[in-house]
Amino acid sequence: MHIPQAIKYEAANETVKKVYDDIKATRQTDYINNIWLYLANDPALLKRTWESVKEVMAPGGALDPLTKELVYLAVSISNNCEYCIASHSSAAASKGMTPEIFGELMSIVGMANETNRLVAGYRVPTDEIFAPQNK
Amino acid sequence: MHIPQAIKYEAANETVKKVYDDIKATRQTDYINNIWLYLANDPALLKRTWESVKEVMAPGGALDPLTKELVYLAVSISNNCEYCIASHSSAAASKGMTPEIFGELMSIVGMANETNRLVAGYRVPTDEIFAPQNK
Amino acid sequence: MHIPQAIKYEAANETVKKVYDDIKATRQTDYINNIWLYLANDPALLKRTWESVKEVMAPGGALDPLTKELVYLAVSISNNCEYCIASHSSAAASKGMTPEIFGELMSIVGMANETNRLVAGYRVPTDEIFAPQNK
Amino acid sequence: MHIPQAIKYEAANETVKKVYDDIKATRQTDYINNIWLYLANDPALLKRTWESVKEVMAPGGALDPLTKELVYLAVSISNNCEYCIASHSSAAASKGMTPEIFGELMSIVGMANETNRLVAGYRVPTDEIFAPQNK
Amino acid sequence: MHIPQAIKYEAANETVKKVYDDIKATRQTDYINNIWLYLANDPALLKRTWESVKEVMAPGGALDPLTKELVYLAVSISNNCEYCIASHSSAAASKGMTPEIFGELMSIVGMANETNRLVAGYRVPTDEIFAPQNK
Amino acid sequence: MHIPQAIKYEAANETVKKVYDDIKATRQTDYINNIWLYLANDPALLKRTWESVKEVMAPGGALDPLTKELVYLAVSISNNCEYCIASHSSAAASKGMTPEIFGELMSIVGMANETNRLVAGYRVPTDEIFAPQNK
Repeated sequence: MHIPQAIKYEAANETVKKVYDDIKATRQTDYINNIWLYLANDPALLKRTWESVKEVMAPGGALDPLTKELVYLAVSISNNCEYCIASHSSAAASKGMTPEIFGELMSIVGMANETNRLVAGYRVPTDEIFAPQNK
Repeated sequence: MHIPQAIKYEAANETVKKVYDDIKATRQTDYINNIWLYLANDPALLKRTWESVKEVMAPGGALDPLTKELVYLAVSISNNCEYCIASHSSAAASKGMTPEIFGELMSIVGMANETNRLVAGYRVPTDEIFAPQNK
Repeated sequence: MHIPQAIKYEAANETVKKVYDDIKATRQTDYINNIWLYLANDPALLKRTWESVKEVMAPGGALDPLTKELVYLAVSISNNCEYCIASHSSAAASKGMTPEIFGELMSIVGMANETNRLVAGYRVPTDEIFAPQNK
Repeated sequence: MHIPQAIKYEAANETVKKVYDDIKATRQTDYINNIWLYLANDPALLKRTWESVKEVMAPGGALDPLTKELVYLAVSISNNCEYCIASHSSAAASKGMTPEIFGELMSIVGMANETNRLVAGYRVPTDEIFAPQNK
Repeated sequence: MHIPQAIKYEAANETVKKVYDDIKATRQTDYINNIWLYLANDPALLKRTWESVKEVMAPGGALDPLTKELVYLAVSISNNCEYCIASHSSAAASKGMTPEIFGELMSIVGMANETNRLVAGYRVPTDEIFAPQNK
Repeated sequence: MHIPQAIKYEAANETVKKVYDDIKATRQTDYINNIWLYLANDPALLKRTWESVKEVMAPGGALDPLTKELVYLAVSISNNCEYCIASHSSAAASKGMTPEIFGELMSIVGMANETNRLVAGYRVPTDEIFAPQNK
């Protein structure tokens, strides 16, 4: 039966080891969390995902690191992804998320999920002022 | 047949008119966008929704107005709500969202939706360090 | 290129014609709405779907016809299915849905979508009193 | 690390205590279920959510209490919210939901989720008779 | 309180027993997995669901058994259905899914969930060449 | 107001032009469909997305090109992404998808969306035989 297992460093092939090493170096920690240990079952998927996450979440862009984590967390909550909620709550907290910020984030996530459906149910047409010109 | 219609100011009852007036005063504009004109079909729903949105999106909290709009927009994109994407893209832009910021937002929204499913498919268990103590 | 087209009665095979006839007889109308004309591209899928819908939505069960339509509509709104919202709003109205009922339905659909996410984000554990005994 | 915890009555501030008292009085029970204990981490969110739920689910509207719970439950099942399924199954049962009613509810929720996707995949255009006049 | 329980063979009525017998005969096993034991709480729902699954997943169609399971699994992962991911991972493995196939499947499921949102956020209009002629 | 526009080849920067050229070369066509023209608003996002899609959908893996397109299409239908349904229906057809295959695909997508919710509503526990050993 196919049940994915975590791939430990010692059991990993060269591609996986390189990614693990890069995660450790980039995050300056020896701890690699479970998502990477499981994606390692497909080394190409692991490599591609890590490189994309690393690029997208890298500091120095137009959004600061805390805002990036809040957006990641908001989507994960909306999708009900238990693992991602746990890991990105932790990441956001380490980048400065306070209980006040989390409460406001939750308020908006809840509100958006509510109004998204109100709009659908009442079949609200998009205002001219919001519509793309080429439509 | 039940097809919701926009409720114009002139045709609105007192509860609805008061909300319309408050929207105009709060946003300092004469334009009321369609969501409110349609929710007005149920005055209690209109009132409750507007008051919640007003409170949640009010300036002066722990999150700045642009970040609030970005979170609202991120959830709306993840839920594929065309109306909300259009209206909150506009709101975010008016609060300082540049194409660079939007590009980074989209990158995170896309990435989160991807990794949320990778975690589900590989059945990744939550790391001890992320789990609530009372579980 | 594969673009589904409606299958008109005249162009339909025997399996499809029988379903069309049964839809007309069951609903006592000559009008067949688009979903059936498109599912007819796969006669087995059309037949299975129609027979299931007919059985599930039949009068005489524990739920009255209006309540059944309201549940169907609530799910379709939550899923943002434009076609289903339009067709089941119409069906619900024909079975007695008033604007007041629709407003209350929307209030609950909005609220449920909000609290579903609040629970996810705050990682609320299920109360002992709600949990299955065999867990 | 940010891991939300339940806020007990004794540890709550005045806003939260007032809400807890109102929940007990409204529901005529001393038991407060976990969602409220966790939302209490953000008193404004707790207060707003409780007041909305109280208003929306109050008896005396166009929909009877059981139908309201069934709609809440249907959306929560469609969204796969384990906590909300557990708590609203319990609430619905206390308002008269029998296994027969639950079975019919599940049949419709399953069917709606199926046909919502059939319509999307076959790209079924909305029938003229279902379309808003102002479109 | 309403908490569904598994219906054992001995406690089942005639409709349910017949379905259980057909599951065993069709799958050539004595083991009936939990979904059927729980759907048995509503015999009509159990019968309809089993007959549909049996017909849809039967060998001999245009798609081979492994591809069918992969599609079932892809949707279940996208919907974050833990039970369905577990059971259909097992079924797919028994029909030939290797870790390589699963890795490619996951790559596509992740990618589709990402690009689905990129398209929504950037409000990409459908190319003429992809649009139905009757639109 | 922020409304994304398509970036034509002539108006594109060097990063974007290179991606456009690679799309044309890889797909052996002069036509670039809209998703790429819109993602070009963020050159880094365009490049990363294209390279991932190119790698994931490349021929020569464990899954054949048609099966890959069917999985992509199944997820897009489940997510109700109109653009992606249109473009991947076209791509699948060009790789051999017949109406029969599409009908079976739709049957499974519909069925999976139904049973995913049945399992959630009946709170079906995962069978021991399907559960990960390390849980």
